Amino acid sequence: MTAKAVQDYYPDDIAVCYGCGKSNKHGYQIKTYWEGDETVSRFQPQPYHTAFPGYVYGGLIASLIDCHATGTAASARYRESGKPLGKEMLERFVTVSLHVDYVAPTPINTILHLRGRVKERKGRKMVISVTLSADGKETARGEVVALQMPADFLGENK
Amino acid sequence: MTAKAVQDYYPDDIAVCYGCGKSNKHGYQIKTYWEGDETVSRFQPQPYHTAFPGYVYGGLIASLIDCHATGTAASARYRESGKPLGKEMLERFVTVSLHVDYVAPTPINTILHLRGRVKERKGRKMVISVTLSADGKETARGEVVALQMPADFLGENK
Repeated sequence: MTAKAVQDYYPDDIAVCYGCGKSNKHGYQIKTYWEGDETVSRFQPQPYHTAFPGYVYGGLIASLIDCHATGTAASARYRESGKPLGKEMLERFVTVSLHVDYVAPTPINTILHLRGRVKERKGRKMVISVTLSADGKETARGEVVALQMPADFLGENK
Repeated sequence: MTAKAVQDYYPDDIAVCYGCGKSNKHGYQIKTYWEGDETVSRFQPQPYHTAFPGYVYGGLIASLIDCHATGTAASARYRESGKPLGKEMLERFVTVSLHVDYVAPTPINTILHLRGRVKERKGRKMVISVTLSADGKETARGEVVALQMPADFLGENK
């Protein structure tokens, strides 16, 4: 693992994502790291992140997969340049589509483990696949189509 | 619209979903209503539910679509019995898969409008399609495969 997470290299002025922005004090502050050809992330749900008593709600799982995937895409694209992560800020990726298969209920009183990898590169898009496990068991699988953020994406808000 | 929302007819002891549980004080408490053959829901994001400055993060959109869809499925199944909503508690549906297409950035300083409909019925499963709009513009489309909760789903937690 690198000392800093992928999300620590997002430009400060737009690092406000509720899922992964280091500047969002209310949010999850997901941290993604590289391990070989895969990315990993760990997350401890809060007791109130329930779907049913004892289990994590699907929206949190979707959020974790989404932000872990866009972080994987942004840093994978940067790594293609051959420069070490952290030399420059990352170009952000946005989510075009998100698909999650909930294969088993996800227990809440444990750390969730995410693993991501680049499945496909097509121009400015990348397809990222992610698995989520709890207590050593895979409980969700996701696939995200992420797009390198167009220059005019934020319009007048940037 | 009915006086009470679909989610008000979920049994109290399992109404703890962060997305739509009436007993989860931390959560979104999404409320779904029927209008003819469609379900509708409205949600005002908090200022910190950002993806980028001015826009809603994708995880919230996924959560809203997910809970609105499972509420649509549970109440659609109950309506098949011909009884008026509210006569009995609803049988819960769980999410098998969730797909979201993010077709445009979703502005944060406005009320989000969701519309759902039953696309397909197959045994204990239903496929629900949902659209999400902001300021009159559709910004996301979702499809959820929902399953009537198996009796043993909650195991020892119920």
